[in-house]
Amino acid sequence: MEKFPASVAIQVLPHVDTDEEVVRIVDEVIAYIKSTGVNYYVGPFETTLEGDYEELMEIVKQCQYIAVKAGCPQVAAYVKISFKPEGGVLTIAQKVTKYH
Amino acid sequence: MEKFPASVAIQVLPHVDTDEEVVRIVDEVIAYIKSTGVNYYVGPFETTLEGDYEELMEIVKQCQYIAVKAGCPQVAAYVKISFKPEGGVLTIAQKVTKYH
Amino acid sequence: MEKFPASVAIQVLPHVDTDEEVVRIVDEVIAYIKSTGVNYYVGPFETTLEGDYEELMEIVKQCQYIAVKAGCPQVAAYVKISFKPEGGVLTIAQKVTKYH
Amino acid sequence: MEKFPASVAIQVLPHVDTDEEVVRIVDEVIAYIKSTGVNYYVGPFETTLEGDYEELMEIVKQCQYIAVKAGCPQVAAYVKISFKPEGGVLTIAQKVTKYH
Repeated sequence: MEKFPASVAIQVLPHVDTDEEVVRIVDEVIAYIKSTGVNYYVGPFETTLEGDYEELMEIVKQCQYIAVKAGCPQVAAYVKISFKPEGGVLTIAQKVTKYH
Repeated sequence: MEKFPASVAIQVLPHVDTDEEVVRIVDEVIAYIKSTGVNYYVGPFETTLEGDYEELMEIVKQCQYIAVKAGCPQVAAYVKISFKPEGGVLTIAQKVTKYH
Repeated sequence: MEKFPASVAIQVLPHVDTDEEVVRIVDEVIAYIKSTGVNYYVGPFETTLEGDYEELMEIVKQCQYIAVKAGCPQVAAYVKISFKPEGGVLTIAQKVTKYH
Repeated sequence: MEKFPASVAIQVLPHVDTDEEVVRIVDEVIAYIKSTGVNYYVGPFETTLEGDYEELMEIVKQCQYIAVKAGCPQVAAYVKISFKPEGGVLTIAQKVTKYH
């Protein structure tokens, strides 16, 4: 299948009682993202991924299963997609390096 | 594959010059959503879909290809996911019927 | 102060235990929005407002106070802003009438 | 006026032709945020601010004026709000330090 470059950000918001539980579950989701090998960047509300569009959308879909398996019965997620199939999506490095 | 009920909203924002072009491309995306047969609801910024989580995430992914085929080289999309695999996600009808 | 036309959508997500409580609190937020007199449209995830930018942003800010007063100690909110000060933001009617 | 701690993230998306122009305008918005003195964190899609809720919502509102003054006739913005008036909103540092 042809590969198309994209950049995608996801916030997973587990429906649990305490902030400690939110952090624990989000950490598991980020550990999963790390395990996929895609380039990613953790921010305060959302984690940004960059790479092949099909692969990123599969990861985005799996994040909700990971959160449920980690112990929350209900998840809300907020996703931003930047898709430019001919190439040239701004990279994470182009966007943030000058600020950190 | 097991089916899990979900509700998903998507805003597709084509990067084109005029509002007329935005509307034309978004109309094509909504026509695609309609063609899938899932229950959907068109709002001013986003269209909400409800049904099986796997099917909805596939549709969400395809929307960006539809927008590009309709004539825009670059797309931004904003997606909200409500996922509750044991069932009981609030339906579109439960949420909006009393207001319309 | 000069008035600038805008369109703004807000989802208020109260951090409470049950869907019944979510619905009750969101209904109070929507009742507040209705009381302001601006044109609005209730969708499954978010409510869209249109009118003067300054007025809309004040309403958006107040929504979180309303939710807290209605009984939730913590609120997440997701806001979309479409701002075009020279005029010509697509109206709610232009966007949804053909679909309903 | 009483102060309430909050955390807010904003993505400003200027409607201009090129990525270079997007970056130039977003840089001006971030320079404005920096000039306010609030604590902030620049991510690939959005910048997160933390501090007093009223002050943050004023800054969020001003960002769109800054973008227009910087040269784009039309702006879309996407805002996330985390509001917990009794205190205890997770800080930026609590969320990202372990990952960077």
